[in-house]
Amino acid sequence: MKFNKKLENIKTYEAGKPIELVVREFGIEPKDIIKLASNENPYGCSPKVQDSVSSIITKMALYPDDSMMKLKDALQNRFEVDGENIIIGSGSDQVIEFIIHAKASANSKILMNSITFAMYEIYAKHVGAEVIRTASQEHDLDEFYEAYKTQNPDIIFLCTPNNPTGDAINAKAMYEFLQKIDNDTLVVVDGAYMEYAGFKETSKKVSPKDLVEKFSNVIYLGTFSKAYGLGGMRVGYGISTAPIIKELYKLRPPFNITTLSLEAATVALEDEVFVSRSITLNFEEMKRYEAFAKDKKIDIINSYTNFVTLSLNKEHNSTQISNTLLQKGMIIRDLSSYGMNAIRVTVGTDKQNSRFFELMSELI
Amino acid sequence: MKFNKKLENIKTYEAGKPIELVVREFGIEPKDIIKLASNENPYGCSPKVQDSVSSIITKMALYPDDSMMKLKDALQNRFEVDGENIIIGSGSDQVIEFIIHAKASANSKILMNSITFAMYEIYAKHVGAEVIRTASQEHDLDEFYEAYKTQNPDIIFLCTPNNPTGDAINAKAMYEFLQKIDNDTLVVVDGAYMEYAGFKETSKKVSPKDLVEKFSNVIYLGTFSKAYGLGGMRVGYGISTAPIIKELYKLRPPFNITTLSLEAATVALEDEVFVSRSITLNFEEMKRYEAFAKDKKIDIINSYTNFVTLSLNKEHNSTQISNTLLQKGMIIRDLSSYGMNAIRVTVGTDKQNSRFFELMSELI
Repeated sequence: MKFNKKLENIKTYEAGKPIELVVREFGIEPKDIIKLASNENPYGCSPKVQDSVSSIITKMALYPDDSMMKLKDALQNRFEVDGENIIIGSGSDQVIEFIIHAKASANSKILMNSITFAMYEIYAKHVGAEVIRTASQEHDLDEFYEAYKTQNPDIIFLCTPNNPTGDAINAKAMYEFLQKIDNDTLVVVDGAYMEYAGFKETSKKVSPKDLVEKFSNVIYLGTFSKAYGLGGMRVGYGISTAPIIKELYKLRPPFNITTLSLEAATVALEDEVFVSRSITLNFEEMKRYEAFAKDKKIDIINSYTNFVTLSLNKEHNSTQISNTLLQKGMIIRDLSSYGMNAIRVTVGTDKQNSRFFELMSELI
Repeated sequence: MKFNKKLENIKTYEAGKPIELVVREFGIEPKDIIKLASNENPYGCSPKVQDSVSSIITKMALYPDDSMMKLKDALQNRFEVDGENIIIGSGSDQVIEFIIHAKASANSKILMNSITFAMYEIYAKHVGAEVIRTASQEHDLDEFYEAYKTQNPDIIFLCTPNNPTGDAINAKAMYEFLQKIDNDTLVVVDGAYMEYAGFKETSKKVSPKDLVEKFSNVIYLGTFSKAYGLGGMRVGYGISTAPIIKELYKLRPPFNITTLSLEAATVALEDEVFVSRSITLNFEEMKRYEAFAKDKKIDIINSYTNFVTLSLNKEHNSTQISNTLLQKGMIIRDLSSYGMNAIRVTVGTDKQNSRFFELMSELI
C-alpha cells in the first residue's frame, strides 16, 4: 500500500521495551532501579491532587468536559489572561503539533536552536517543513536574527530554559528580539521549565501575560509535566492572542485531555506550596551536582531547570558511561544523539542523587 | 497572521459551556440531571479498574510506558494478533486521525456512509480531502462498491455498528465486499460498538484477527470508551497488517496515553464479567425502548449498540423535543444536524430510562 510521501522522511519512533525491563535483565530488582532520565518531579505530585483524582475515580466512564471550563478558569486566574488566550493540549507537545500543522507546510522553514527539544523537528517532518538551526549551543539571539533575515522562517522556536541543556534566555534580550520580528512569523516561547527559571533568577522569567499584551505573533507554552509533577497525565497549554488560539483550536481533537487529567491539573494549580517546595528542594540538591562536577573537574551547564547537563572530558564517552550506569540500575540520558559528549541527569531526591554520585565516582 | 489555507474550511469546534451548566441555568440540581447523550456506559467501569487505578495514583508524576507493553500484551491475547498488528490511540479518534494523515491528502477522496461518525469528515478536512457519501441511510455495500469504482477513493470508512443510527453491516456481506477492493485502497472497519453487536447477533460480529489474516488493506478500530466504560480515559486501538501499523506509528506522538489510562484499559480487558453484565443489561433495557416506541407509534432503528435512534413523526420536531427535554434536565442527542428528524438516546440504567419515558410521554 502506498502512503503519503512525507512519511518516508519520518523515522518510526522505536518504543522498545520499557527501560526498567531492560535493567531487570541485568538482574536488578525494580526497587533498586533509579530513573533520572525524563525530568519528572522526584517528589511526585501534590497530595491534594492525589486525593482529588481518587475522589472522582468513579467518573472514568464519563467523557471529559470538552470546554475544559474549570482548568481554563484556573489558568486564566493564574496567568491573568482571558479564556480566549488559552489552548490546552495533551502535553505542550500537542500544542507544538497544532502550531506546526496550522502555520507550516512543505514549503516552510522552521528556525530553532542548534540543540533543543527534539519534538520540534519531529513535528516539522510531519508536514515536510525544512528545519534551520543556529550554530551556538546556547540560544544566541543575534544568530537567530541573522537566520530570520536570510531564511525567512514561518516559525521560530525559542526554548527557555532550553532542553536538554538547561540554560535560559535573558527575558529582556528576548523581548528586544521579539520586537524585531514581523507579524507574520510565529514565535514559540517554550517555557516547559519556566517555573524553575523564574524561581532561580528573575531576569530569566518570561510572563505569558506580557507576551500576549505586547506581541501579536508570539505563543507561550507551559506544562504540568515538570514542576507540577504530572508527567503521566499529559496536560500542557499554549497562551497567545485570541486570533492565533482560534486557528489552533481548529486542529484540536475533541476530548484531548482525560477526565482525570483535567481534575489533576486544575487541583495542581491550587497547591502552590507543593510546587514551591519541589523547586526549592530541586535547587538545594542541584548544588550537590555543582560541587560534584567541580570536584571531578567536569563541566556542568548552569541549569535553570530540574536537570543538569554534564559535559564529559575527552577521556570519557557519554554512551559508555550511560550504558554502564544502566547496568547498575541508574537510568540517565546520553546526549550523544545531539552531537554532545554529555549526559543529562534529572535532579532527583537526596537519596537518588547520592546514589548517582556514588556510581558515577566509580567511573570518572 | 496568515495560516495554512486548509484551516479556512475547518469550522472551529465550539466547546461552549458544559451542558450540565446550561441545565443548571434552568434551576435544576446536578443530581437531577440525566445525560443520555454520549453513549457512555451507564454502569460506569469495572470496580477492578477503579481499584487498580487508585492503587497507582502516586505514579501520576511518571511518564507513561511509551511502549505500552502491558496493554499491548493484553490486546494481543484478546484478539490473537501480534504486537506489530496493534496501534493504540487517544480514543479510536486518534487512530482515525493517523489513518487520514498517513493515506489522504488534498487530492484524495474519502468514501463514507451518508450518515455516520462525524469525526471522519472533520479529520478529512484537516488534510483537505474530498468526502464522498453513499445515498442510503444504512450502509448499502452495492452503493459503496459503485462509488468505489467511479470515484476511486483512497480511504473507505465502514462504521459497524453505525453511529449515530445503531444498525450494523452483515459480516459475511462485508467480507465479500472487501474482497472486491484493490490493495491500495485502505478500508477502515470502525467497530467502536462491536462488543454490543457481537453479543446481539453473531452474523454481525467482525473479528479483527480474520480481517488481518485475509486482507492487506483493512484496519479494524476498537475502543475502551463504550462497553469497557472508560469514555473519560481516552483509549482506543487499531488492528491491521504490520506494514500499515508501521506507517501509522510514524504519526503517533510519544506518550499519547496517560499513565492512569494505560492501567485502566489493561485491567478493563481482564474483567469480562463486568463487560458481559453491562451488555446484557443494555439489551434488557433496550426492550423497554422498543416497547415504548411501539406504544407511541414512532420508528426505532434496530440497534446493535448501547443507544437507540428514534425517528420522529412529522408532527414532532427533534430539535424542539431535545430542547424541551434539556429544560427538564434530560440531555439526549438531536440528530437534525445529520439531516434527520430523529433523536439518539443512550440506553441508560433502569431508573434513567424510566425518567426518559416519563418525560417523553409528556411530549408525544
